Amino acid sequence: MKLILAVVQDKDAAALSKKFIENDVRATKLATSGGFLKAGNTTFIIGIEDDRVSDVMEIIKESSHTREQYVSPSISSRGSAMMSEPVKVTVGGATVFVLPVEEFKHF
Amino acid sequence: MKLILAVVQDKDAAALSKKFIENDVRATKLATSGGFLKAGNTTFIIGIEDDRVSDVMEIIKESSHTREQYVSPSISSRGSAMMSEPVKVTVGGATVFVLPVEEFKHF
Amino acid sequence: MKLILAVVQDKDAAALSKKFIENDVRATKLATSGGFLKAGNTTFIIGIEDDRVSDVMEIIKESSHTREQYVSPSISSRGSAMMSEPVKVTVGGATVFVLPVEEFKHF
Ligand code: NI
Ligand code: NI
Ligand code: NI
Repeated sequence: MKLILAVVQDKDAAALSKKFIENDVRATKLATSGGFLKAGNTTFIIGIEDDRVSDVMEIIKESSHTREQYVSPSISSRGSAMMSEPVKVTVGGATVFVLPVEEFKHF
Repeated sequence: MKLILAVVQDKDAAALSKKFIENDVRATKLATSGGFLKAGNTTFIIGIEDDRVSDVMEIIKESSHTREQYVSPSISSRGSAMMSEPVKVTVGGATVFVLPVEEFKHF
Repeated sequence: MKLILAVVQDKDAAALSKKFIENDVRATKLATSGGFLKAGNTTFIIGIEDDRVSDVMEIIKESSHTREQYVSPSISSRGSAMMSEPVKVTVGGATVFVLPVEEFKHF
C-alpha cells in the first residue's frame, strides 16, 4: 500500500476525479490554495496497492500535465476594433509524491 | 512518532474530535470532499508516539466504523397516508493510513 | 526528496507563505481547523530536497514559534474609566513532520 499525494490545478481536478472513479481509484480531495503551481490548486490523497502506483501516476500525468493552449483574450489590449489574436498560455501541471505506508486499515 | 491520516464520514467527525480531545490525542482536521467514502468526509492528521498508535486506531474504529442504522424516511414513497417503514442504511466507515515520520519538531 | 507537513497558527500563515516564496520553497496550503494548536490553524505541504530540510525547518521556526506578546484588552474588565493594562498572551507555535518520499514526479 502506498499513499499518493497529488497537487493539480483546479481546472484539471474535475476531469481527474472522473478518471479516478472510472479506474476504481479511491481518492479524497482536499481544499487547497496557492503553492506548487501558483494558480489555485487541488490536492488529492490516494491510497493504492503497490502494483497500481504506476497506473495512477499515468492517470494523473494524462489528465494534468503541463501543456500549452491558445486562448482568445477576452478584451483586446490594442482597442476594440482590432481582431484579438489567440495567446499561447501554459496550463496544467501536477506535483506528485508517493509515500510509504506502514499500516492501512478500513473500518 | 507516526503520522496517522484518517478519512471518516462528516457525520462521525464531531464525535471523533471529542474522543481525541478526551484521550489527549492531538489531531488537525482538514476540509475534504468526496473520495474514499463517497459521501462528504473529513480527514484528520494525527501525530502520535509509536506506542499509542493502536489506541488511536481503536478510537477511530469505535467512533467511525461501518454500521447499519434504521432510519425513518422523511417522506413516504407510497403516499402520505401510509405509515413509513424504517429503512436500513449503512453509515460510517473510516480509511486509515499510518505513515512513518523521519523527524518531528514542535516550535 | 522529503515531504514536510507544517501546522501553524492562522495568524502566522501569511508571513510564512511570504518567507517560503522569498526562499524559493514550494508550499501548498491546506484549509484546516482546530487540532494541534487549539486556535485556528493552517497546514502547509512542502516538497523539498533532502539538503534543504534544515533550512525549511529554520524558516518555519522563525516565522511561527511560540512566543509571548503583550496585548491591550479591547474592553477593560474593570470598567470603562480604568486604563486597561496590556495582558501577556502566548501566540504562535508550529508542529512539523518530515516524511520520507519514495517517488516524486512533476508532470
Ligand atoms: Ni498531452
Ligand atoms: Ni460498533
Ligand atoms: Ni523569536
